[in-house]
Amino acid sequence: MADHSAVRGCMVIKPYGFAIWENMRDQLDRMFKDTGHVNASFPLFIPKSFLSREAKHVDGFAKECAVVTHHRLMNNPDGEGIVVDPTAKLEEELIVRPTSETIIWNTYKDWIQSYRDLPLLINQWANVVRWEMKTRLFLRTAEFHWQEGHTAHATSQEAVDETLQMLNVYATFAEEYMAMPVIKGVKTPNERFAGAEDTYTIEALMQDAKALQAGTSHFLGQNFAKAFEVKFLNENNKEEFVWATSWGVSTRLIGGLIMTHSDDEGLVLPPKLAPTQVMIIPIPKPDDIINEAVDKVMALLKAKGISVKYDDDPKKRPGFKFAEHEMHGIPVRIAIGKRDLEKNVVEVARRDTKEKTSVPMEGIDDYVEQLLVDIQQNLFDRAKKYRDEHITKVDSLEEFKSVLKDKGGFISAHWDGTTETELKIKEMTKATIRCIPLDNPKEDGKCILTGNPSTQRVLFAKAY
Amino acid sequence: MADHSAVRGCMVIKPYGFAIWENMRDQLDRMFKDTGHVNASFPLFIPKSFLSREAKHVDGFAKECAVVTHHRLMNNPDGEGIVVDPTAKLEEELIVRPTSETIIWNTYKDWIQSYRDLPLLINQWANVVRWEMKTRLFLRTAEFHWQEGHTAHATSQEAVDETLQMLNVYATFAEEYMAMPVIKGVKTPNERFAGAEDTYTIEALMQDAKALQAGTSHFLGQNFAKAFEVKFLNENNKEEFVWATSWGVSTRLIGGLIMTHSDDEGLVLPPKLAPTQVMIIPIPKPDDIINEAVDKVMALLKAKGISVKYDDDPKKRPGFKFAEHEMHGIPVRIAIGKRDLEKNVVEVARRDTKEKTSVPMEGIDDYVEQLLVDIQQNLFDRAKKYRDEHITKVDSLEEFKSVLKDKGGFISAHWDGTTETELKIKEMTKATIRCIPLDNPKEDGKCILTGNPSTQRVLFAKAY
Repeated sequence: MADHSAVRGCMVIKPYGFAIWENMRDQLDRMFKDTGHVNASFPLFIPKSFLSREAKHVDGFAKECAVVTHHRLMNNPDGEGIVVDPTAKLEEELIVRPTSETIIWNTYKDWIQSYRDLPLLINQWANVVRWEMKTRLFLRTAEFHWQEGHTAHATSQEAVDETLQMLNVYATFAEEYMAMPVIKGVKTPNERFAGAEDTYTIEALMQDAKALQAGTSHFLGQNFAKAFEVKFLNENNKEEFVWATSWGVSTRLIGGLIMTHSDDEGLVLPPKLAPTQVMIIPIPKPDDIINEAVDKVMALLKAKGISVKYDDDPKKRPGFKFAEHEMHGIPVRIAIGKRDLEKNVVEVARRDTKEKTSVPMEGIDDYVEQLLVDIQQNLFDRAKKYRDEHITKVDSLEEFKSVLKDKGGFISAHWDGTTETELKIKEMTKATIRCIPLDNPKEDGKCILTGNPSTQRVLFAKAY
Repeated sequence: MADHSAVRGCMVIKPYGFAIWENMRDQLDRMFKDTGHVNASFPLFIPKSFLSREAKHVDGFAKECAVVTHHRLMNNPDGEGIVVDPTAKLEEELIVRPTSETIIWNTYKDWIQSYRDLPLLINQWANVVRWEMKTRLFLRTAEFHWQEGHTAHATSQEAVDETLQMLNVYATFAEEYMAMPVIKGVKTPNERFAGAEDTYTIEALMQDAKALQAGTSHFLGQNFAKAFEVKFLNENNKEEFVWATSWGVSTRLIGGLIMTHSDDEGLVLPPKLAPTQVMIIPIPKPDDIINEAVDKVMALLKAKGISVKYDDDPKKRPGFKFAEHEMHGIPVRIAIGKRDLEKNVVEVARRDTKEKTSVPMEGIDDYVEQLLVDIQQNLFDRAKKYRDEHITKVDSLEEFKSVLKDKGGFISAHWDGTTETELKIKEMTKATIRCIPLDNPKEDGKCILTGNPSTQRVLFAKAY
C-alpha cells in the first residue's frame, strides 16, 4: 500500500494503495460536484507573511513546516556535488502550504466584489506538508494528499449551513462507501482548527479501540475575510466582510479504511471502494475449458458494472493466489475448476466472512451482485457493532481510567466545559475530547475531574 | 482561466480552466490505463544529493529550483511577525521536485529484484516546480501540474517500444481530443532531456506561428538504473541494469489549446474537452412555455451523453449571454424563443464558424450530436490547414531569416548535424530545431549555415 521514502516523513503510495485512493477521491469528487462545488488550483507556496495575518492561524500552522529560502543550486566550488547558491536567497521565505486558507483568501479578495459573486464554492485536490516529528504511514506523514474546500458566503447562516452540509457529505461517504461508522460532532474550543469559529468532525473507531478524526468541516466566520480584507457590497449596497468555511479529508482515510476492516490475513476492502471486486482463479491452472467458462463469467459480471480480474498466471498455485488476493482484500473470489464445471457450478468465497459457497453458473451475475451488496452491509454492521460496544458511559475519574486502560474506545463522560479541565485530563490519561456529538442529549451531571456542574456528556478517547 | 498569484511565477487555475484540465487529465488517464499503466504517488521533495547522482541530469535540473532549508518558523523575538527558526536547519537540503526520475529510481531499487518484477508501468499526476525567470500563464510557470510516467523494463527494445507507444498516445490525444495537429519527432542531442538517450516530442504550431513543445517521451537507457544501482536478475540468473523511460505532458497543454483555436471573441473549445458542450438560452427570458421546451431538449441531449446547461438568469439579456458563452468557447448554443417554438424550431449556433441554423425540435438530439462531431473535425482541419501552410522549405540562410521574420512557422532546412551549428543558428535567429520528424524522408542537401553535407531536413521554429 505504501512505503517510507528516502525523505523523512514522506511516503510513497504504491499502485494498489493509490488505486483505492483514486476510488475514494472520485466518489468524493462526485459528491462535491453534486452539491454545487467546482475544483480549482492554488499555489503550493505561501509567502511567510501571509501566515501571520490571521492571529490564531499563525499559532496553529506557522510552526513545523517546510521553508523554502533559496531558488538556486550550483556546483560546489570547493569540491564535489552541488550546494545552495548563497546569492539566490529569496526576499521573503516561502512556506510549502500546510493548508491554504491564507493564499486562497488573498485570491478571493480579487474575485469578490458584490453579493452577485457569492457564494464561491471551490474545492482543491492537493498535497500539503506539515513537518510532523512522529510519522506513521497514511495517518501522520509530512506530506499528504487531501482535498480542501474553501467557500465564501454572503451570510453567516449560509456558511454554517455549508459547514454542516459538508460534514454530512463526509459522514455519508465514510458510512456508505468506506463502511466505517462515524460520530458527527463539534470540537471543543481547544481542539478547534486554528482560525475557526467552530470545527465539526467525524470521528471513527479503529479496531484497536483508538479513535480517528476522519474529516473536519470548519465555520470560519469572518476571520479570514478580515485578515485579507475581503469585503462585498450586499444587496443594500453596504460593505460587509465575507463569511467563510473550509473542510477537508485526506489520505489518512486510507489508514482508517485499513484499521477498520483488516484481519489477520490482511486487508478487507468494502466492495464500493475495491479496485478489483472479484478475482477469478482457475483450479488448478488455466486451460481451454476453464478459460471459456471464465470468459463467460467475466462478461456477465462486467455487464453489471462489476470490476473483475482473472489471475491466470500458470506459475503460481491456487493456494498462493488465494492468500495473495486475501491479503489485498478483494471482496469476492471465484474459483473455477473442471470438476465443478461438469456440475455447472463454481466456488464463490467472500473475503469478509471467508464463507465458501457452490453457486450455479446460471445466474452467477445476480448472485455476485447481491453478494457485493451484502458484504458492504456486513462490513458496516460489523464495524458499527464494535464501535457501539466501545462507547462506555462513566461517572468517575477512576472508572474513566480503568475503562481507558482495559477496554479503550469512546468514553462518554461529563465535563465542566473548561479548557483547563480538558487539558488536565489529557495530561493524566492521554485521552482527548474527540467531540460533542451533534445529537447529544442534554443531561445534568458532574464533571468527572472537578465535580463542577455539566449539562451534557462528551466523548473522550485516545486518538491517532 | 488562470490568474497570477501572490507567489512569483505561480498561477491560480480558476474553476473553468481547471474543468478543462480535468477533462484532459481524465482522458489521458484512461489512455494510460488502457495501455497497462497504473498510478502511484512519490514524494514532493528530493534530497539534494540525489540530483547529482546522474551526471547529465544534474546540469539540466539542479539549477533553478525551490530549495527547502529549514523546517520550522517561530515568533520573531525582536519584533512582529514570524521568522525562520535558525535551529531548525535541515541536515540535507530538500529540493521541490522539478521532475521525479531520481526519487523514483531510488524507490524502484527496492521494488525490482528479478525479471518477474518487470515491467513496472507507473504514472504519477503531480505538481512540480522549476524556478523560471520569465513566466507566462500555462506555458511557463514556476509551479505546474503534469503527469510523469516512469517505466522500468528488462530490455532496451521494450523500453524503446514503450517510449514510442507513449509518444503515439500523446499524439492521438492532441489530435483527436484537442484537435491540435502535431508533428512527431526526435530531439537533437542538444535539446534532449537531461539524462536521456533519446527524447521524442510532439510539436504543435500556435496561431501566432510559434511552435509549442506539447509533450515529450524519453528513452533513458540504463542511465538512472546505473546512477541508483537498480539491477535485476534476468531469466538466465544474470544481473543486469534495468532499462527506463519517462514521459510527460503538463498544464502547458491548456495554453496550447487556447492558442490553437481561440479567436477575437475568446476561447474556442473542441467539443470532446469542453466542460459544457451545449448552452441553452431563453429568448428573451425564461417562462413556462420556454422552460418546458428546454426541459425536453435537455433530457434528449443528456440521454446522448451530451453535457448541456441552461442559462436561465432572468437579470441578463440574451446578447450578454451570447457574448459570455462565446468567450468561454462553448461549442454549441441553442436559443429558444416563443416565436420559434410556434414553428416547432430552435436556433442552433456553432462557436467555430458562428453559423446559425433553424433546426426542428424533432430530432434536435441527433442534429446536435452530429454537429459536435463536425465541430471537432472542423477545428482539427482548420488548425491542420494553418499548420501545413506554415511549414516552409528553405535552402539558404537568407531565405531562412526572411521566412522566419515574415511568415514564421516551421522551417524545413538542411542542417549538418552538429550542436555547434544548431547553437549558432539559434544565436543568430532565436529559432531552434524543434525536431527531426519521425517520418522524415532522406534527402541529400547542404547545411544552410555551413554548407556541409546533410542527409535530411529538420524542422526549425521559434518556440514558446
